Amino acid sequence: MGKSIAMNGGEGPNSYTHNSKQQRKGSDRAKVLLSNCIQEKLTVENKLNTANQQIFRIADLGCSVGPNTFASVQTIIEATELTFKTQILEYKPPEFQVFFNDHVGNDFNTLFKALPLDRQYMAVGVPGSFHGRLFPKASMNFMHSSFALHWLTKVPEEVTEENSSAWNKGRISYVGSSSEVVKAYTEQFVRDMEGFFRARAVELSSHGLMAILMPCRPEGTLPSESIIMQVFEVLGCALTDMAKEGLVSEALVDSFNLPIFIPTGNEVKEVLSNIEHLTIEKSEEINYPPNLSNLEDVRSCIGHVRAVMEGILCEHFGAELLDQLFERYSNKVEQFSKTSVFTRIEKLENLFLLLKRNPSS
Amino acid sequence: MGKSIAMNGGEGPNSYTHNSKQQRKGSDRAKVLLSNCIQEKLTVENKLNTANQQIFRIADLGCSVGPNTFASVQTIIEATELTFKTQILEYKPPEFQVFFNDHVGNDFNTLFKALPLDRQYMAVGVPGSFHGRLFPKASMNFMHSSFALHWLTKVPEEVTEENSSAWNKGRISYVGSSSEVVKAYTEQFVRDMEGFFRARAVELSSHGLMAILMPCRPEGTLPSESIIMQVFEVLGCALTDMAKEGLVSEALVDSFNLPIFIPTGNEVKEVLSNIEHLTIEKSEEINYPPNLSNLEDVRSCIGHVRAVMEGILCEHFGAELLDQLFERYSNKVEQFSKTSVFTRIEKLENLFLLLKRNPSS
Repeated sequence: MGKSIAMNGGEGPNSYTHNSKQQRKGSDRAKVLLSNCIQEKLTVENKLNTANQQIFRIADLGCSVGPNTFASVQTIIEATELTFKTQILEYKPPEFQVFFNDHVGNDFNTLFKALPLDRQYMAVGVPGSFHGRLFPKASMNFMHSSFALHWLTKVPEEVTEENSSAWNKGRISYVGSSSEVVKAYTEQFVRDMEGFFRARAVELSSHGLMAILMPCRPEGTLPSESIIMQVFEVLGCALTDMAKEGLVSEALVDSFNLPIFIPTGNEVKEVLSNIEHLTIEKSEEINYPPNLSNLEDVRSCIGHVRAVMEGILCEHFGAELLDQLFERYSNKVEQFSKTSVFTRIEKLENLFLLLKRNPSS
Repeated sequence: MGKSIAMNGGEGPNSYTHNSKQQRKGSDRAKVLLSNCIQEKLTVENKLNTANQQIFRIADLGCSVGPNTFASVQTIIEATELTFKTQILEYKPPEFQVFFNDHVGNDFNTLFKALPLDRQYMAVGVPGSFHGRLFPKASMNFMHSSFALHWLTKVPEEVTEENSSAWNKGRISYVGSSSEVVKAYTEQFVRDMEGFFRARAVELSSHGLMAILMPCRPEGTLPSESIIMQVFEVLGCALTDMAKEGLVSEALVDSFNLPIFIPTGNEVKEVLSNIEHLTIEKSEEINYPPNLSNLEDVRSCIGHVRAVMEGILCEHFGAELLDQLFERYSNKVEQFSKTSVFTRIEKLENLFLLLKRNPSS
């Protein structure tokens, strides 16, 4: 299962809590879509049409520490209640049990303390990788995952082996790397997504729904043309500079790679076509190009990259390197933004999918 | 719901993890009892007698950070599997989902990292007070609570009010206090236990079981004759000494009280007699007098008191006081043990109860 990846915990200036606006922006745009989809596609089963109060179990997979996860859960609950009201004659709101999932290294203590006091659901934390099984068979009614599925379970091994043809020397992602590196990353992504979807197909109850929001790149583009990956690779440039100046060992930089892959929508759907019982009910691409000529947007983006990356960078390079690394990173991103080094900036995309668990026949 | 109470987290020398041997000792003795009770009383319902794999949901209420909670869960799972094997012809082990519950201030991060890697269950953390609702209606098959129910939701208000007849000046528990103080504590205990049992009666599935292990005092003794409370009250003596020496303000000591009550078995059963749908299937008292003339036992006991009490003491008095306080406490307990200041040391007891959720008629 590889190393545990976790966003920065706590409440400090570099915490994920205070640096997840980009994620929030995406979620806000997806909110209307999510709400409409639930009302359109959620089937209230006959057995619910009774006077007994029912249990409706929701999971947020890759929830991090909030506050975005609480907003998503609220949207799901409100839309579900509306749907129940419409479909059930003697309506009684179900009891909602919400499962917040992330890696075991996630700061669940902070997450739990931040739970909304006025929540109308029972909250539970689930530590573990969503690439494997997390819940009992057919036990979940609705699953959700937002901005988490681009994380791989691990860096593909070939990429870190010095005598492999896919060795990724001098880079931290597949941007600008050989086709062997890109291939290794693509295959890792396919394996991981398969694991994710197979686990969910088991865990979702019959007619259960799953909504996914994840960064993707436009159809017809190469993996290395992803603008998000390009922004991440600037960290690699900063690290290479520091290695040249003798501030960090070259070998340490060579052995570091990001376990991230940004697919196209079709690459995701291709994986799904091999999964029994899951069908695509809705597929949309949400575009919101960040304005990288706006300094505030750029800084928000840099703050976000730090909140997200600090954990794995710290583990590999040690904490003392971080401040200098991010100062250099920040300067480089601002400079690259001004000089249009980044390509296809106009095509930043997010993929929204609504999937349904069909009954086993 | 009052303040959140949590045992010391982490892995340090004063952590609950390394200072819960007394609890473990009690659990070990209760282990055989627990296992036998499950095999004797667990009813495998007809609907389980199918080829489909079933879900069996277990909760440990007041789990703290381990390792005791993992040992208890293991006992419950093994006994449940044995029972299923005996009662079901085409046996297939159920899927176990285990809910680890404690206050929101509990160190869930440490708990999650300590989860046994070879566990045969899916693990979940549930933040919140077990004196209220935590789970959906009729959703739990087995609940367990060990050494947690002597904690009250709060110190009874009268006890902290200067112009109340129950003001508990100069003491931190009801040991040696006026009858008004004892009455206030007793009433708080009854209210809290009622809340606990009523919530469980809703959450347990029909025929679901609950096992409780909690410290109690012998029948016919007064609340203040509890040896556990006497050992805790020595902290009060140490604090009063420090106040006299001007090391801490007297008002601060006066306003501190422990939210703990040690009942007799009959006091617990009296509360239960008012709860619909819960019946007592088994009741036993487990005696294991600690040998307070053995210095190692005394020190283990002192280490445990620190792991348990440090959190609330720190919140009230500040962290800087703690080392000195516990040094004085340690000296006093060792001295009192030698000079037999503690009464009824031979009568330390624990109450074990097995309860069943009977179907609503």
